[in-house]
Amino acid sequence: MSGNVFGELFRLTTYGESHGPGLGGVIDGCPAGVPLNEAMIQADLDLRRPGKGPASTARQEADAVRLLSGVFEGVTTGTPIAFHVANQDQRSRDYSDIKDVFRPGHADFGFHAKFGVRDYRGGGRSSGRETVSRVAGGAVAAQLLALEGISVQARTVELGGLPPVAGEVDWDTTREMPFFAPGPQTAEQWEQRIRDVKRQGDTLGGVVEIRAQGVPPGLGEPVFGKLDARLAGALMSVGAVKGVEIGEGFAAARLLGSQNNDPMTSKGFASNKSGGVLGGIASGQDVLARVAVKPIPSIALEQRTVNSAGKEATIRIGGRHDISAIPRIVPVLRAMVSLVLADLILLDRRLARQR
Amino acid sequence: MSGNVFGELFRLTTYGESHGPGLGGVIDGCPAGVPLNEAMIQADLDLRRPGKGPASTARQEADAVRLLSGVFEGVTTGTPIAFHVANQDQRSRDYSDIKDVFRPGHADFGFHAKFGVRDYRGGGRSSGRETVSRVAGGAVAAQLLALEGISVQARTVELGGLPPVAGEVDWDTTREMPFFAPGPQTAEQWEQRIRDVKRQGDTLGGVVEIRAQGVPPGLGEPVFGKLDARLAGALMSVGAVKGVEIGEGFAAARLLGSQNNDPMTSKGFASNKSGGVLGGIASGQDVLARVAVKPIPSIALEQRTVNSAGKEATIRIGGRHDISAIPRIVPVLRAMVSLVLADLILLDRRLARQR
Amino acid sequence: MSGNVFGELFRLTTYGESHGPGLGGVIDGCPAGVPLNEAMIQADLDLRRPGKGPASTARQEADAVRLLSGVFEGVTTGTPIAFHVANQDQRSRDYSDIKDVFRPGHADFGFHAKFGVRDYRGGGRSSGRETVSRVAGGAVAAQLLALEGISVQARTVELGGLPPVAGEVDWDTTREMPFFAPGPQTAEQWEQRIRDVKRQGDTLGGVVEIRAQGVPPGLGEPVFGKLDARLAGALMSVGAVKGVEIGEGFAAARLLGSQNNDPMTSKGFASNKSGGVLGGIASGQDVLARVAVKPIPSIALEQRTVNSAGKEATIRIGGRHDISAIPRIVPVLRAMVSLVLADLILLDRRLARQR
Amino acid sequence: MSGNVFGELFRLTTYGESHGPGLGGVIDGCPAGVPLNEAMIQADLDLRRPGKGPASTARQEADAVRLLSGVFEGVTTGTPIAFHVANQDQRSRDYSDIKDVFRPGHADFGFHAKFGVRDYRGGGRSSGRETVSRVAGGAVAAQLLALEGISVQARTVELGGLPPVAGEVDWDTTREMPFFAPGPQTAEQWEQRIRDVKRQGDTLGGVVEIRAQGVPPGLGEPVFGKLDARLAGALMSVGAVKGVEIGEGFAAARLLGSQNNDPMTSKGFASNKSGGVLGGIASGQDVLARVAVKPIPSIALEQRTVNSAGKEATIRIGGRHDISAIPRIVPVLRAMVSLVLADLILLDRRLARQR
Repeated sequence: MSGNVFGELFRLTTYGESHGPGLGGVIDGCPAGVPLNEAMIQADLDLRRPGKGPASTARQEADAVRLLSGVFEGVTTGTPIAFHVANQDQRSRDYSDIKDVFRPGHADFGFHAKFGVRDYRGGGRSSGRETVSRVAGGAVAAQLLALEGISVQARTVELGGLPPVAGEVDWDTTREMPFFAPGPQTAEQWEQRIRDVKRQGDTLGGVVEIRAQGVPPGLGEPVFGKLDARLAGALMSVGAVKGVEIGEGFAAARLLGSQNNDPMTSKGFASNKSGGVLGGIASGQDVLARVAVKPIPSIALEQRTVNSAGKEATIRIGGRHDISAIPRIVPVLRAMVSLVLADLILLDRRLARQR
Repeated sequence: MSGNVFGELFRLTTYGESHGPGLGGVIDGCPAGVPLNEAMIQADLDLRRPGKGPASTARQEADAVRLLSGVFEGVTTGTPIAFHVANQDQRSRDYSDIKDVFRPGHADFGFHAKFGVRDYRGGGRSSGRETVSRVAGGAVAAQLLALEGISVQARTVELGGLPPVAGEVDWDTTREMPFFAPGPQTAEQWEQRIRDVKRQGDTLGGVVEIRAQGVPPGLGEPVFGKLDARLAGALMSVGAVKGVEIGEGFAAARLLGSQNNDPMTSKGFASNKSGGVLGGIASGQDVLARVAVKPIPSIALEQRTVNSAGKEATIRIGGRHDISAIPRIVPVLRAMVSLVLADLILLDRRLARQR
Repeated sequence: MSGNVFGELFRLTTYGESHGPGLGGVIDGCPAGVPLNEAMIQADLDLRRPGKGPASTARQEADAVRLLSGVFEGVTTGTPIAFHVANQDQRSRDYSDIKDVFRPGHADFGFHAKFGVRDYRGGGRSSGRETVSRVAGGAVAAQLLALEGISVQARTVELGGLPPVAGEVDWDTTREMPFFAPGPQTAEQWEQRIRDVKRQGDTLGGVVEIRAQGVPPGLGEPVFGKLDARLAGALMSVGAVKGVEIGEGFAAARLLGSQNNDPMTSKGFASNKSGGVLGGIASGQDVLARVAVKPIPSIALEQRTVNSAGKEATIRIGGRHDISAIPRIVPVLRAMVSLVLADLILLDRRLARQR
Repeated sequence: MSGNVFGELFRLTTYGESHGPGLGGVIDGCPAGVPLNEAMIQADLDLRRPGKGPASTARQEADAVRLLSGVFEGVTTGTPIAFHVANQDQRSRDYSDIKDVFRPGHADFGFHAKFGVRDYRGGGRSSGRETVSRVAGGAVAAQLLALEGISVQARTVELGGLPPVAGEVDWDTTREMPFFAPGPQTAEQWEQRIRDVKRQGDTLGGVVEIRAQGVPPGLGEPVFGKLDARLAGALMSVGAVKGVEIGEGFAAARLLGSQNNDPMTSKGFASNKSGGVLGGIASGQDVLARVAVKPIPSIALEQRTVNSAGKEATIRIGGRHDISAIPRIVPVLRAMVSLVLADLILLDRRLARQR
């Protein structure tokens, strides 16, 4: 797993910059016979698109995906699946003033130090727009997972420090709810919080929870390729993520062994403190992860920074920016979990007991 | 990164079971010319060995490492570096009673579901003893990092829910301190806590902090191979780890953008909330990670479980077990960070601007 | 190296079918700062295009390449370089009669056995048209190699059993010569041979030689990643190739050690029987490989075969087919050598002696 | 496939130098449940050992293999299989005179250019002794293949330019025959040839043929991971190999399409000119490869060379050297084919049609 390639067997390579011709990817390793068409991918891309809510950028992109290979008569053929999403609303001039100034909290300085050359327009490759390719890839993975009886959901469980309203714990409606919230009252409170912070010229973070159901016991690789290790690496690879927990996570560090162990009974596990992973291997319970999302670093308030010559400068970031990475990051995190599981499903096929 | 191989260019493959002939590994990709001998590796292995403290197992292993290849006249030759640590004190009979019963909180059930066959003696491959190979590999990585001016430290910042005693924040003495604690009074409190819990037949978790200094700005790969993604995957791959944070971590999810951004000045960054990573790329500040360690699942108290036939059973785990994965996990986590950084250093060489 | 990904550090992933929307690829790992534009790639693609000569298919494709990412202001940025070549002249109806019949000498039967589903139109993914992506990728690799002072050439040294006319041994004009022949008289003879065989409804093979100049001594990896091993795997991965030789090749098997060894002098090697590779590592001399290309299996003569139900059938392959894979395979083989060398150049950077 | 790692899923990492403590390897990715013990590996290692024949070195090594992990109660457990072969008869002083002089035809100069540091004793890592690890790894692969009904054989078909005696074409006895010859008279002629050349202080090459039976149709990956590409890369990675042919190989370049195509009938293919590979995918016929082996470069005759300071020198290589890489290379080539097939078998499991 390096650079722009994700996965070992279900392998997604992505490309594209915020203000280039477009973004896309190639999946090498998807088995033949998986039902797939553009509409299946588009449905997930639409969940990630800038909405009309207060948290969202004003940049409008259709994000219409086009399949370029690997599908014939409605099913995958086992050959690489390429997809492309053209950029439309690029307005490059919005960004020319940040050409030589490093935006605090962004990758600008690191990319400059690393490559010496940088497509500064809208963050280039480091823009959140690269997640278009993740969501498209994850949608393909989800089709493979569906054939295995595995489904992945994601929802927001905290926004700007606000937990859900008591009693709102519903997973089933989150996909349609604003902010992918666990209930309508929660969504309303969060919307108000966003509006307030937007007025101040500031931004917010939050916490997202992901759940995978139907993961067969035994999934995951020993030692370095543990299921939770793969999840942590995948989720932390999404920009703005600063923490990952599995099951009880940091709370487990404060429990006794007798409190944290999940007893087994003839009807299955009696609890799921482990988050569905024991010793790195799936236990067959729901796989549960939580992710800390930092506030978006592009704020309208004035900030201190330096330019590429090392001189001090101040910067106010106008333009079309989200107030919070939530809700748009939620389908991205879901996609990453789908990609991890699809890869491990294929890896598992090669390692299972020889008969 | 799958199964038993870690890294892409500085690539460590490990092997070995708790009660087999021994454990070891091969590093493929270490450049030529790095000073290396067995004593350098042994020093780190000794930090991981069962100690005399109350948290430790009674199993005594010399864990003497032997270098088998790749070093000539005191320096690496660019060819694979193989090392082996023989098992000595194996007492297989201690474990025969758990042959057919799944220990709660362990990988037993997952391994059984995955492979159908299992070396049940002491957990076999899923035993914490596999970390011997990680520490040895990390010690080699640290030699390479030293030539680049990079050093990695690790310390415990919470044990059984107890934070350090106020004012004890010293990084420099932690390597010699019990529990790798940030100060002597803290160590004393933690020791008392361990004794109490041991008497109850129970176990404890904690939180460990890792710091890498001297990491050059620009290190890390865009998109999937981000520095923090690699760290999260590596740290979560260590058994007992249930959460990973970079910089402010979950606390960042509750800050405003204006609070969380690190301003840049002509003298460098004015704060380090990011933990040295921006957009997945090193900023040149200290890299800071925190890890949640769950309590050890092997407890002396009676637990409910099932056997391999699915029948209910109870189990009390005697034998020689640690009360907490801390302190022994601390050098393991440090080793993982060294392995990540060594790999990224080599990856960086191939991607830097062509001149 | 698997499936549709080539290389470890300079990594090309390709996609596309003969009769889908198009073909393309993504290069992950090209360093920043390499001059690149579409014209540089197009020049090599034009060498591979169906020509007007007697050996060529009547299918006409502009094969116009479009760069989709990774280049900014005329140089690479270190991020993935994606390119796409749209299919234009697809005429799917030409192929509907072979939907259920396996063409002898083709991959049809193997793909059917492997995937169970198959894009039969024009061979789908197994069509020689996939080499468009190889040539485009190789053109990018060649830009990187040029900065290192390395150049790669390829020429035909035998066609339909006919060696070059005596005295025609010129490397320098082969790029402009019909069939990439080493001289004009040779080209004329080969053209006549092609015409004769075409009239019979049959096809021809040949032998191609590739030369890389400027390869630095030390390039190549020990043991499995030897320079010649990488070349052999890369060249044999091109459809129609049935043999690969390095230096003296099979002739070396008939020499004595004293005849085959290249003596070293203070002015360099006194001969180059080794083809520039000793023990798998570049010696600094010209790297020389030769490749056997089988006759194209699509012949107009009637052949015996079976259909997908296992029933016997006969087949005559009409349509627009080349008489020989030469000359169009020549730039493909050159591209593969460029891809291997670019990858090894990057690999070498990480393994060289630490200073 | 780079450096010292072979395979993607059935992945062998090897280590060791000619005069270090020993050689060995780790296989990561072998499925659980494959019968395995040390005797199975030893049987193949014994075929590679220096014999008593005239072609062999006088160095005597027991080459006793020890399994270090991954096997429990006679079957593999799905965890890494490590093995080690200790070096015994090292006589380092034999080699001290070549410390600073590059042996013609060897990797000495390339290793010096690459790494700057070199274990010169007996060639270090570039010694033919590294093939011990290949043979051991191949023996494990063969156990997996046996469960799939696949067997691999290898024999010599030419030595020092001498083909087999007419009528000696037997595959079945080659394993027991001197030189792995196809018949006793052939072996006798070859032995005489070896004796003659040895007397002159010179060395010989030859040609080896490998046959895999039971390879299922469909094995192999499209495009870059073709079955023949993998074979060519694997076989060429063995020191002394300078050419690889599949099926008719270079002879195919001189046939017409109508001569080279293998007709299909309801009873299967009517011929096997393709060597069991069509479009890179197994056809289900025997897979046939031929390999050119150069004469051993260590000759007793005086040769011109240079030392590490670039000064001219002469060298006569005494010591204990084989006259021909044949027969000892034969089991090595067989092992490489087994490793390729085991890897492709596992790769195939993940790509086959989803049901």
